[in-house]
Amino acid sequence: MSRKNYLKRNCPLSQSMAVIGGQWTLLIARDLMNGINKFDNIQKSLNISRNLLAQRLRQMEKDELTNKVIPEGLKRAIYKPTQKCFDLTNIVLALAEWSEKWAPDPLGPRIKVLNLLNGKDLKLSLVSSEQANKLDLKSVKVSFLENT
Amino acid sequence: MSRKNYLKRNCPLSQSMAVIGGQWTLLIARDLMNGINKFDNIQKSLNISRNLLAQRLRQMEKDELTNKVIPEGLKRAIYKPTQKCFDLTNIVLALAEWSEKWAPDPLGPRIKVLNLLNGKDLKLSLVSSEQANKLDLKSVKVSFLENT
Repeated sequence: MSRKNYLKRNCPLSQSMAVIGGQWTLLIARDLMNGINKFDNIQKSLNISRNLLAQRLRQMEKDELTNKVIPEGLKRAIYKPTQKCFDLTNIVLALAEWSEKWAPDPLGPRIKVLNLLNGKDLKLSLVSSEQANKLDLKSVKVSFLENT
Repeated sequence: MSRKNYLKRNCPLSQSMAVIGGQWTLLIARDLMNGINKFDNIQKSLNISRNLLAQRLRQMEKDELTNKVIPEGLKRAIYKPTQKCFDLTNIVLALAEWSEKWAPDPLGPRIKVLNLLNGKDLKLSLVSSEQANKLDLKSVKVSFLENT
């Protein structure tokens, strides 16, 4: 099903997949959230072709996941993640936790989610709406670890 | 990036995307989890071409998301979701919650997640590992609502 066909369905699952299901999009979003926000740095981090990265970033601007800005005094643009992008955190974590369970790396965990306020590990969980955490995403640190 | 290239990366995010990023896969998984498990019923539910559905189901068998079984006394196979498939629940919910926030339907919510044990609404939340809910997914009912 194409992006267009996904968007035609009045289904919240299809609509997210239309935006983030495109290959690379979530990996780019993760880089942006981690402060890797210059074109060349993202390109190196992901080892993605420049053309494809440019195309993905344009689409992500249209989808309001990033704003391209040129900071005063600098020549190169940076891509700032929007709140809509930061709100992808649960999706990124749910995907990563599923891999950690079903296709773990023998060398150990590849992701760590830390509450910076108390140093505790965090995990996604289904809780009653009134108990749902109002944790500010700024106090959550998601680290992807390199085992290789 | 192709499925093959996703799988080459030792990154838990890429590896899940390789399995569930294929178009339709998550929608089929959702149907299986909701008890829509005969080929014809999935085909009607999603309005997907028979060829494409057959191809996706074959891949989902390889990926251990479903087992094709022919129950005694029946002629037609059913596709049983595996635990690995049920464990996609957080991914499905994270995607759906994101759409509900950023592209809500003016007619109202399109998803309801209920704890069958106490009738309370559930929400995904980041909590300390030791507080993480051990809620059995069998006591969680995820309903996708049709507003149209």
